[in-house]
Amino acid sequence: MKHYDLAIIGTGPAGQKAAMQAAKLGKKVCIIERSKVLGGVAVNTGTIPSKALREAVMLLTSSGKQTLLSDKQSAGRRVTMSDLIYVADQVIRNEWQVIRKQFSRNNVDLIWGEAHFEGPNLLQVIRETEEDSDTEMITADKFLIGVGTKPAKPKTVPFDGKTVLCSDQLLKINRLPRTMIVVGGGVIGSEYACIMAAMGVRVTLIEGRSQVLGFLDRELAEAFQYHMRNAGITLRMGEKVNKIEKIPNTNRNNEDAPAELVQATLESGKRLTAQTLLYAIGRQGVCGKLALDNVGVPYDDRERLKVNEHYQTEQEHIYAAGDVIGFPALASTSMEQGRLAVCHMFGKETSSIPELFPLGIYAIPEISMVGKTEEQLTEAGIPYEAGIAHYKEIARGQLLGDDTGMLKLLIHQEDHRLLGVHIIGTGATELVHIGQMVMAFNGTVEFIINNVFNYPTLAEAYKVAALNGYNKLEHIR
Amino acid sequence: MKHYDLAIIGTGPAGQKAAMQAAKLGKKVCIIERSKVLGGVAVNTGTIPSKALREAVMLLTSSGKQTLLSDKQSAGRRVTMSDLIYVADQVIRNEWQVIRKQFSRNNVDLIWGEAHFEGPNLLQVIRETEEDSDTEMITADKFLIGVGTKPAKPKTVPFDGKTVLCSDQLLKINRLPRTMIVVGGGVIGSEYACIMAAMGVRVTLIEGRSQVLGFLDRELAEAFQYHMRNAGITLRMGEKVNKIEKIPNTNRNNEDAPAELVQATLESGKRLTAQTLLYAIGRQGVCGKLALDNVGVPYDDRERLKVNEHYQTEQEHIYAAGDVIGFPALASTSMEQGRLAVCHMFGKETSSIPELFPLGIYAIPEISMVGKTEEQLTEAGIPYEAGIAHYKEIARGQLLGDDTGMLKLLIHQEDHRLLGVHIIGTGATELVHIGQMVMAFNGTVEFIINNVFNYPTLAEAYKVAALNGYNKLEHIR
Repeated sequence: MKHYDLAIIGTGPAGQKAAMQAAKLGKKVCIIERSKVLGGVAVNTGTIPSKALREAVMLLTSSGKQTLLSDKQSAGRRVTMSDLIYVADQVIRNEWQVIRKQFSRNNVDLIWGEAHFEGPNLLQVIRETEEDSDTEMITADKFLIGVGTKPAKPKTVPFDGKTVLCSDQLLKINRLPRTMIVVGGGVIGSEYACIMAAMGVRVTLIEGRSQVLGFLDRELAEAFQYHMRNAGITLRMGEKVNKIEKIPNTNRNNEDAPAELVQATLESGKRLTAQTLLYAIGRQGVCGKLALDNVGVPYDDRERLKVNEHYQTEQEHIYAAGDVIGFPALASTSMEQGRLAVCHMFGKETSSIPELFPLGIYAIPEISMVGKTEEQLTEAGIPYEAGIAHYKEIARGQLLGDDTGMLKLLIHQEDHRLLGVHIIGTGATELVHIGQMVMAFNGTVEFIINNVFNYPTLAEAYKVAALNGYNKLEHIR
Repeated sequence: MKHYDLAIIGTGPAGQKAAMQAAKLGKKVCIIERSKVLGGVAVNTGTIPSKALREAVMLLTSSGKQTLLSDKQSAGRRVTMSDLIYVADQVIRNEWQVIRKQFSRNNVDLIWGEAHFEGPNLLQVIRETEEDSDTEMITADKFLIGVGTKPAKPKTVPFDGKTVLCSDQLLKINRLPRTMIVVGGGVIGSEYACIMAAMGVRVTLIEGRSQVLGFLDRELAEAFQYHMRNAGITLRMGEKVNKIEKIPNTNRNNEDAPAELVQATLESGKRLTAQTLLYAIGRQGVCGKLALDNVGVPYDDRERLKVNEHYQTEQEHIYAAGDVIGFPALASTSMEQGRLAVCHMFGKETSSIPELFPLGIYAIPEISMVGKTEEQLTEAGIPYEAGIAHYKEIARGQLLGDDTGMLKLLIHQEDHRLLGVHIIGTGATELVHIGQMVMAFNGTVEFIINNVFNYPTLAEAYKVAALNGYNKLEHIR
């Protein structure tokens, strides 16, 4: 029976970074994966595949570059679903290799199989092979649970992988539907709604609240909703879905039309019909099979774990990180949680500034933010001013044909510190880090104004927004 | 006769920002433009048109995205020169409007005509109309000369705008040549060599030194040269051109072939022949017509001005900024020089950190740097370590199909401060600003390691490079 300083369950972003950090500290580490592939949801069914699709769609349709060249191209570029999946597959395969190399280079033992707790420091790993199964017992001083989540699939929804889909299933359809209903305006629902619309699918998005992506600054969310509508997406806000059912397609006008359609009945009485429906409300943890009862670690009804500020569960030697502990459930933050958990468990001092964790939404257009929203600042009673730059005002925005992008800086009215950065448009997830750095060092709007930016860049939007905000601040005095 | 606090000659980047800054300080400003269009070389013949071409070429040929989708597309997308010029024209027209609006919104008097000094505080502006000309006299307390440069055109080179071209003329050719010799591996020569090669032109680049872009970090320059060769460009380094002459095309095999070719004879005796030649060595100032003799401001044999650290010429009330004062002759730095000159002339305190001015090269791939090169640090005896990230190691690099991009951080061995950032690859000119911000606040490699980046982004390359450098630093101890 092998003994480890740390046993990690799950090879997603949280587990990977935890393993690397522990290895760097000279600890003996194993990482256990129950699926046939490495990387978890991020690599295999979530982040990477959806971004690969998005990249391919952007390239093949040149979305967001419509103004300058749309009349010069367009014909003869029919995007097929298999084109897109082909791209995603290459990237995924490469990620597997990268992860595997990282593990072996850092002497992290990779153990295939499904783990569960037999005792406070004892795991049993069961590996099913074609004929039989073998088991392995592992002891460790510390544990990190990074098992991730899967799409929530309520029994009332008739998922069939063809007409009614969860987000995992969406990536496996082999032809593009003509119409799609997306239920849920969170990150997953919004991203896929945009990608599908860019491919020419007529999308209707249903969201129970009055705004998609509830955590966004309202101005950005409204801009995003405007762009979604511009892209042909029908938004049904403040609507709840009562019933989802498959109905026969009684009006098939050609052989390509599917035999079945899906009908969503809303609380308000409306009925919507489409060729496909993507159900994208909620994800749930996958703790059920860990036998956590054996060690006294409770989980909630969605199989998610609660942790303290050090990522410890009720058992102080059992940590958890990543999607399984809830919001924001982004790969970037999961990695950081994995790293922080390991630093804590082995008494390594480190610093982390959660207020500076960025959020990145890979919709079309891209959205990213760091720091506070206007709503949060108002609620907290912090006096601020907003400075705005529109991409169309800056040369590179015009060169890219992105005339809808926008960058907003929130600036403290008194000390002129940067309090928040909100970007919608080309490169948002990259550009946000410029402002994040300024915030990390308590930089002011004057600092940005006096900085020299390459010309022409989108980064110049920082200078334009800073000037805009500064002029408003001056006016107040 | 109108009197101004400041009269600016030239509406390029230096003049524009000078005018804005002076207006913000409440000064009465005029700006004089002798050409028919606003914005100078940056907008009309240099920066913007070449970047518009580049953007269009990138989009139409999907350069740099070859790995993932090259077999899925490619056919049926012949790029024509008129497609490209069409794109550039739209952007240029828009820039004119933006500049004009800026002037009128800030009450800057825009005066069309050619100015020269009649006395220390007196300008005459001559405006030629179709029938006759009218003149206007202007007095001002301060002057800013921002007249820019034009391509140097030695008499020994038989420029004809068709076979033998300067960079201004290149933008006006109406069909793509099959072959081109580019003389000069500076910014202009390198950028156009890449753009032409991406459009399928067979390019030979001749550079007298052993490296293109002499100011670059050598590792980056070598990577760039590797990429140029990969793109089909033939590099002739350490070669000087002795003679350029047009010769009859005695071997025309079809009607499309031009009647004349160009032949370059090198000092080493080699003879190169091509359909076209771009001569891109040196630019010269355009001070000759300013009658600077009248006010005792000398200029050199390339009509460029010498200024002190406050951008003052020999006459302390006459300032100069932008390309006319020499290196680096980039729009971004010209803007800053214009701003700083005005702050100095009106006693407005300001800060500027020239060590943090970025350099951006819009070649294919893009290149950008801020801070020191390895060569500079070695020469200065500053102990450093380099941390490197390859785009192919990070998910977004794979998603973009950019497997050649690279980011290098130079880190002080003792205090771990960031000393330089060097990037070649997609988004280089934008990404460099993340590192620039860290450098502005004396941030360390540890800070970057602990930062959370959106996933997947190219910005993650900072973290990967920081880890790479940090591991080397640790090893040293």
